Amino acid sequence: MTAYRGVAPLQGATSVDVSFLDNRRYAPLLETTQAGVVVTGPAFADRLPDHVTGLICKAPYLAWARVATLFHPVEPPEPGVHPTALVDPTAMVDASASVGPFCVIGANVEIGTGSAIGAQAVIGQGVRIGALCRVGVQSSISHAVLGDRVVLYPGARIGQDGFGFAVGPAGFETVPQLGRVVIEDGVEIGANATIDRGSMQDTVIGAGTRIDNLVQIGHNARLGRCCIVVSQAGISGSTELEDYVTVAAQAGLIGHIKIGAKARIGAQCGVMSDVEAGADVIGSPAMPFREFFRNVATLRRLAKKGGGKGE
Amino acid sequence: MTAYRGVAPLQGATSVDVSFLDNRRYAPLLETTQAGVVVTGPAFADRLPDHVTGLICKAPYLAWARVATLFHPVEPPEPGVHPTALVDPTAMVDASASVGPFCVIGANVEIGTGSAIGAQAVIGQGVRIGALCRVGVQSSISHAVLGDRVVLYPGARIGQDGFGFAVGPAGFETVPQLGRVVIEDGVEIGANATIDRGSMQDTVIGAGTRIDNLVQIGHNARLGRCCIVVSQAGISGSTELEDYVTVAAQAGLIGHIKIGAKARIGAQCGVMSDVEAGADVIGSPAMPFREFFRNVATLRRLAKKGGGKGE
Amino acid sequence: MTAYRGVAPLQGATSVDVSFLDNRRYAPLLETTQAGVVVTGPAFADRLPDHVTGLICKAPYLAWARVATLFHPVEPPEPGVHPTALVDPTAMVDASASVGPFCVIGANVEIGTGSAIGAQAVIGQGVRIGALCRVGVQSSISHAVLGDRVVLYPGARIGQDGFGFAVGPAGFETVPQLGRVVIEDGVEIGANATIDRGSMQDTVIGAGTRIDNLVQIGHNARLGRCCIVVSQAGISGSTELEDYVTVAAQAGLIGHIKIGAKARIGAQCGVMSDVEAGADVIGSPAMPFREFFRNVATLRRLAKKGGGKGE
Repeated sequence: MTAYRGVAPLQGATSVDVSFLDNRRYAPLLETTQAGVVVTGPAFADRLPDHVTGLICKAPYLAWARVATLFHPVEPPEPGVHPTALVDPTAMVDASASVGPFCVIGANVEIGTGSAIGAQAVIGQGVRIGALCRVGVQSSISHAVLGDRVVLYPGARIGQDGFGFAVGPAGFETVPQLGRVVIEDGVEIGANATIDRGSMQDTVIGAGTRIDNLVQIGHNARLGRCCIVVSQAGISGSTELEDYVTVAAQAGLIGHIKIGAKARIGAQCGVMSDVEAGADVIGSPAMPFREFFRNVATLRRLAKKGGGKGE
Repeated sequence: MTAYRGVAPLQGATSVDVSFLDNRRYAPLLETTQAGVVVTGPAFADRLPDHVTGLICKAPYLAWARVATLFHPVEPPEPGVHPTALVDPTAMVDASASVGPFCVIGANVEIGTGSAIGAQAVIGQGVRIGALCRVGVQSSISHAVLGDRVVLYPGARIGQDGFGFAVGPAGFETVPQLGRVVIEDGVEIGANATIDRGSMQDTVIGAGTRIDNLVQIGHNARLGRCCIVVSQAGISGSTELEDYVTVAAQAGLIGHIKIGAKARIGAQCGVMSDVEAGADVIGSPAMPFREFFRNVATLRRLAKKGGGKGE
Repeated sequence: MTAYRGVAPLQGATSVDVSFLDNRRYAPLLETTQAGVVVTGPAFADRLPDHVTGLICKAPYLAWARVATLFHPVEPPEPGVHPTALVDPTAMVDASASVGPFCVIGANVEIGTGSAIGAQAVIGQGVRIGALCRVGVQSSISHAVLGDRVVLYPGARIGQDGFGFAVGPAGFETVPQLGRVVIEDGVEIGANATIDRGSMQDTVIGAGTRIDNLVQIGHNARLGRCCIVVSQAGISGSTELEDYVTVAAQAGLIGHIKIGAKARIGAQCGVMSDVEAGADVIGSPAMPFREFFRNVATLRRLAKKGGGKGE
C-alpha cells in the first residue's frame, strides 16, 4: 500500500504526492508528471500515464478541495487573549476564541466559540461575531453582525459610513449613516475589500457568499446566498443581488437595481439596469453575452471594410 | 403634540418615526408605511397616506440630511491621548483632541481642536491636522497638511510616494517624491483610498470634496472644491479637476489633463484628454453622453441587420 | 561658481534650484522660470532662457531621477527594534535593520541588512526579507520570500489566501492555498495593493517590477522582470507576464493567459486571451491599438450618418 504524503502540482509532484488537473491548458503536463495520484475529470482519464493512479470525478475541483483539505486542515486557533490586546471589560470573548496582539475590542462586542481575531484588528462597540470566524490582521469592523464561519482577509473594512451626502448651499452635507452590515454564515471577504454600513436599513451579505480582494459594496446593498464577487468589482448602494449571482472582476453595478438569481455579470461589465434571473451579461453598458460578441464582430467587419473612409 | 423618536425607513417606521422618500422606485412603500412623518418632494405629496405628516421640500435629500442629523448628531470625541499611543514629545496635540490606542504620532505633528485620531493610525513627522477632523482607524498619513473638518475613513493612505521612476540601463530608477498632500477643509476620503504625495509640487484636494472608498489619486493631481469622486475611480498624476466635477465609479483619468468645472465623468469612463466645463462624458474613450448612447444604438442596429454575415 | 541648493518645479524654482522639463504641455513655463538649471531634452534646448543653464540629455527623466536623488538620498533607517514591537524569539533580525512600533514579527522570520519595517507591520511566520528592503506601515506579509531592495507601501497585503473554492452540494468549499509569494530584488508594491499566495505553486513577481496602488495580483500569477502594473489594474490567477510588460491603469487580465515580453496593455483594457510579445492592445475585449481607434472612428461615422434611423 502506498501512503501519500501531500499534494503538489503536476510538474513538482513525486510518487507520494496527490496532484490535480482540470484545465485543458495544462493537460500536456500529464505526460511527464511523476505524481502518484491525479484527481481529474473523465475527459483526461485516458491520458493518465500508467504509473499514475487516477481519481476520476465528475466534479474534480470539488474533489480536489476535499483531498487537499485532508492534507491541510485549517488549524484551530490557540485560545486566549494576547496580553497586548485591549479588550473592553464589557466585551464577551469566548474562552475558546483567540484575540491577537494589539487588537482593540470595543464595548459589548461578542466573539463566539473558536473564532480567531488577527493581530491589530479593531472591532467597534457592539459588533457581534459568531463561532469559528477568522478575522484577518489589520481589518476593521464596526456596526456589524457576523454569523458563523465568516472569514475576513487582512485590511478588510466592514461597517464604516457609506458615501451619503446632500448638496447644501455651502457645500455637501453628510447624511447620517445608521444601518449595520449583516454578514451571514460562511461568507468570506477579501483583502482590502470595503463594505459600508447601511444608511437606514442594513447592508446584507447572504450566507456562503464569497467576495474577493478590493471589492466595494455600497450602503444598503443586499447580496443573496452563495454569490461570487470577483476582485475589484463594485456594487453600488441599495442594489440587490438574488442568490447565486456571479459578478466578475472589475464589473460595476449602479445603485438601486436588482440582479436576478444565477445571473452572471461579466468582467468589466457596467450594469445600469435590472438583470433577469439566469442572464449572462457583459459590456458597458451591459448586454447579453451573445449580443456583445456579435457587436464586436460587426464593428470589426465594418471598420475593415470602411477603412475609416466612408462607404 | 407628537414627539418623534427617531428616523427609520418607510417599511420599518412607526408613528413616532420620521422617514424619507426621494426615489420613485420606492414610492409604493408609501401605501403601507406606518411612519409619523415623511420627508419627501412635491412629486410624492399627494401619495402620502392620511396618517402621515408630510414634510414637502424642494431639496428633500438635504432636508433629510438635516433632520436625521438632529436625531443623530456627530458626537465629539472624548479628549485625551490613550496611554498605549506613542506621541513624539515634539508633537502638539490639542488638549481637546483624542488619540486612540496604539497610534503612532511622529515628530512635530500638530493635531487641532476637537480632532479625533482613531485606533492604530500612523501619522508621520510634520503632518498638520486642523480642527474637528476625524482620522479613521488604521489609516496612515505622511507628508500632508489637513484643514479643518477633514474625515478619513479606515485604511485610507495619504502621502506615500507616488509611482515615479525612469528607465535606466539596469532597470527602473526611482524619482524622489518631494511634494505633499494638501487636503482642504471639509474633505472626506473613503476607506482604503490612496492619495499619493506630489513629486515636486503638491497633490491638492479642494475644500468640501468627497472621495469614496478605494479611489486612487496620483501624485500632483489637483482637485477643486466640492468635487465628487466615486468608488474605485482613479485620477492619474498631474491631472486637474476644477470645482464641482463629478467622477463616477470606476472611471479612470489619464495624467496631465484638465477637467473643466461641473463636468460629469460617467461610470467606467476612460478619459484620455481634456474635458470642457459642464460637459457630460462617458465611454472609453470618453465621449458626450448623447454620442455614446447613439453609438450603442447604432451598433446594435447594424449587428442585428448584418447578423455577422456581411451586408 | 554657483552652488545649487535643491530641486524645484519650474514655476517655483530660484536661481539656486535645479528644475526639470520633459512634457511639451509645460514648456511655456520655461519663459518665466527663475531656475538656475533645467534638466531637459534636446527638443527644448533652444527654448531655455539665457539665465538658465541647460542639462540637455537624451533621457532627461532618468537624468532627473539621478539629480534629484543626489539632493534627496534615501536615508538609512535607524537600526534597532522598537520596544513596543513583538518579535518572536526565533526570528532573525539583522542588527542593522529597523523594526517599528507595534510590529508583530512571527516565528522564524528573517530580516536582512539595513531593512526597515514600518510601524504596525505584521509579518507572518517563516517570511524571509532580504537586505535594504522597506516595508510600509500597516502592511501585512505572510507565506512570502522577499529579495533585496523590495519596497512595500502602506497597507500592501502580501501572501493571504487566494480566491479558491469549489461548488459543493451545500455551498462553496474552500480549496487550500499552499503556495507562497516570491518577490524578487528591487520590486516595489503600492499602497493597499493585494498579492495572493499561490494555490499550489508560487505567485512570482520578477526583479525590478513596479506595482502601483490598489493593484490586485491573483494566486499563481507570474510576472517577469521590470514589468509595470499601474494603479487599480488586476491580474487574475495563473496568468503569466513575460519581461518588460506594461499593464496600464484599471486594465484587467483574465486568468490562465500569457502576455509576451514588452507587450503593452492599455488603460481599462480587458484581456481575455494571450497577447503576443511586443503587441500594443487596448479595449475590452483587447485588440491592437490601431484597430481599436479605427473601430471608434468607424462607429462614430456610422452613428452620425445613420442618426439611429437606419441607412
